Amino acid sequence: MIVLGIDPGTQVTGYGVVRGEGPSVMTLIECGVIRTRPDDPLPARLRAIHEGVTELVQRHKPDVLSIEDVFYARNVRTTVTLGHARGVILLAGEQAGVRIHEMAPAAIKKAVVGAGAATKEQVQFMTTRLLRLKAAPKPSDAADGVAAALAFLMGAHLEAIARLQR
Amino acid sequence: MIVLGIDPGTQVTGYGVVRGEGPSVMTLIECGVIRTRPDDPLPARLRAIHEGVTELVQRHKPDVLSIEDVFYARNVRTTVTLGHARGVILLAGEQAGVRIHEMAPAAIKKAVVGAGAATKEQVQFMTTRLLRLKAAPKPSDAADGVAAALAFLMGAHLEAIARLQR
Repeated sequence: MIVLGIDPGTQVTGYGVVRGEGPSVMTLIECGVIRTRPDDPLPARLRAIHEGVTELVQRHKPDVLSIEDVFYARNVRTTVTLGHARGVILLAGEQAGVRIHEMAPAAIKKAVVGAGAATKEQVQFMTTRLLRLKAAPKPSDAADGVAAALAFLMGAHLEAIARLQR
Repeated sequence: MIVLGIDPGTQVTGYGVVRGEGPSVMTLIECGVIRTRPDDPLPARLRAIHEGVTELVQRHKPDVLSIEDVFYARNVRTTVTLGHARGVILLAGEQAGVRIHEMAPAAIKKAVVGAGAATKEQVQFMTTRLLRLKAAPKPSDAADGVAAALAFLMGAHLEAIARLQR
């Protein structure tokens, strides 16, 4: 199973593509960021994000698109603008027929680290271990995208274990 | 000049297509709503909105897409979800190369009625008069889309008058 994890943002959208084979073998295929031009108006940025995600989906053919849910930032304007970015990302997934899984930031941390209140450093530490990397993915937006992908795979494993125990 | 006015919403997106010829002749070409299925998940709804706006833009070839700016609803979740709808609408305009004009709700009221605090009824009354209609466009979401289109044309006229007076 291939999962495309996405950390949405109008300036920088981070992503990670992870392959999950069995309950404990997960491999990082690619990670990076879709960076938009600071001087571009919002519609042009949204187009760049939509094209970037569409290209990733076409190239990797993921089974699932795992995306961080909107967090309620202190600044409402930031949160609403983020909603625009999420809108075009969800659209790109939907247009490609990919299953979409939305996860709250706390749920991602809980799945990767075991605690919803985990720090960014703890998430990066576990991401590095789980994928047997030498260092955490850079920049941090890419690492957040990878964590979203990992979180989906970890959640799926935990569910499978729970089913076996019942 | 043809203006496509849009009142964004994830459940109902209202629109109005208005042709402006000279400073006082404005004609309603079409108005209506893009209604999404209540049972559909958000990505499917966003796709329906994106397809609906793309179809309108291809059919009417507007010079401008005039869209209501995000209003800060009391409910943050509603406002953020609205951001998703706006995102795919801005994307549809950008993909078609249409000039996009964003207007705050108060600016739309100010342009159509002359007062930013005008009531919905006052806006509908002036919309009906300015377009020489027998009744206000229905449903009210369609009327809001028409008002967004009118507001752009009225604003453009007022600017032209101000230029003449200088």
